[in-house]
Amino acid sequence: MRRLHHFVLSPFCRKVRLVLGEKKLGFEPISEIPWERSRELVALNPSAQVPVMIEENGVVIADSNAIAEYLEEVHPEPPLMPALPAERAEVRRLVAFFDQLIFAEVTAPLLRERILKRFGWGCAEDAAPDPAAIRAALDALRKHLSYMGDLTEKRGWLAGALSLADFAAAAHLSCIDYLGDVDWDGAPRVRDWYARIKSRPCFRPLLVDHLPGVQPPRHYTNLDF
Amino acid sequence: MRRLHHFVLSPFCRKVRLVLGEKKLGFEPISEIPWERSRELVALNPSAQVPVMIEENGVVIADSNAIAEYLEEVHPEPPLMPALPAERAEVRRLVAFFDQLIFAEVTAPLLRERILKRFGWGCAEDAAPDPAAIRAALDALRKHLSYMGDLTEKRGWLAGALSLADFAAAAHLSCIDYLGDVDWDGAPRVRDWYARIKSRPCFRPLLVDHLPGVQPPRHYTNLDF
Repeated sequence: MRRLHHFVLSPFCRKVRLVLGEKKLGFEPISEIPWERSRELVALNPSAQVPVMIEENGVVIADSNAIAEYLEEVHPEPPLMPALPAERAEVRRLVAFFDQLIFAEVTAPLLRERILKRFGWGCAEDAAPDPAAIRAALDALRKHLSYMGDLTEKRGWLAGALSLADFAAAAHLSCIDYLGDVDWDGAPRVRDWYARIKSRPCFRPLLVDHLPGVQPPRHYTNLDF
Repeated sequence: MRRLHHFVLSPFCRKVRLVLGEKKLGFEPISEIPWERSRELVALNPSAQVPVMIEENGVVIADSNAIAEYLEEVHPEPPLMPALPAERAEVRRLVAFFDQLIFAEVTAPLLRERILKRFGWGCAEDAAPDPAAIRAALDALRKHLSYMGDLTEKRGWLAGALSLADFAAAAHLSCIDYLGDVDWDGAPRVRDWYARIKSRPCFRPLLVDHLPGVQPPRHYTNLDF
């Protein structure tokens, strides 16, 4: 069976899990703490980054974008990329916007301050969270939620039809929501979009995710939040 | 005519320029200092990031990966992606390896310490370079050059046939080389690979690039370095 090495609060792994779920492709999830550099993970990917997917036939693919594009090529139904090159470019621009800019400005600093420091993953254990870094991430999130609201209001889904862009975005927001850091009342248009994607069957496994010692807020699992 | 908004020492812009050159697609380069957020650039891409390409028909594409994949779809000759999905995934893994990991660990810190601080781009002007940050970037570069050497020795080009992975890698190394930070004597296998890609016609425009006030080392333009 297909296997996926993943970290439960990695937005990149969550994107791949959503794409696999949406395409109804089964897989055995193998939970990793990438900072612990398990021997198996390092053998698969020298940089010890997740996700890494191993196909039934032994093909090993690292990097969430490489995996998502591969799945789209090999299992094109249901399509998560539009047909026209210019529209595909817009989906890829948005995926990069979430996986690079929003990750750098929001998801990564919030995970670092709230989770990684607590467990000493990639930093000293029990280092104190930096309130200024959290404030800057939340400010950036507010700005980006406003842009996302504009897009979903105009287009429905982020790039028109449901696409990889929505799953990339939802993967980030779901991690941030697990930390309790999304002000849904302040972003009603994005809440409408998130409620739609959160109610898809592919989302269910993410809603029962659990990082020992870190409780998500009660609304995290709620489809009517 | 096609236009490309770019910054002369951006590895992402250089990758796109190499791809356009390799596919013999003409374009008018429009030089940007992204930190100055020119009105035209912000109108094209609210995040004021380069590259942004504007096609003759008015289609605007931001993000180097979106542009490169678009060009590959619309102008498939000469191919810079292999035919098989698993091989395409390997090219995309390598592109992400250079554009994310090597950028974060090497290209970005070297550019910041040596260039951005000097000109006050995105930071206080004339801030002193941090020797520890430069040392860490050079250590990371040494490690990654060794991995690249293994790949080129085994495969010839990074993913077997000449591909986007080579142009992504060469774009980063060319920026680092402009700063005088590549120890070519310590990486003879990568030097052989770089000499091959550097001698391609698409590389010529990069070798005459000039950032006012910052001279590249003499060997930068030399095909026999």
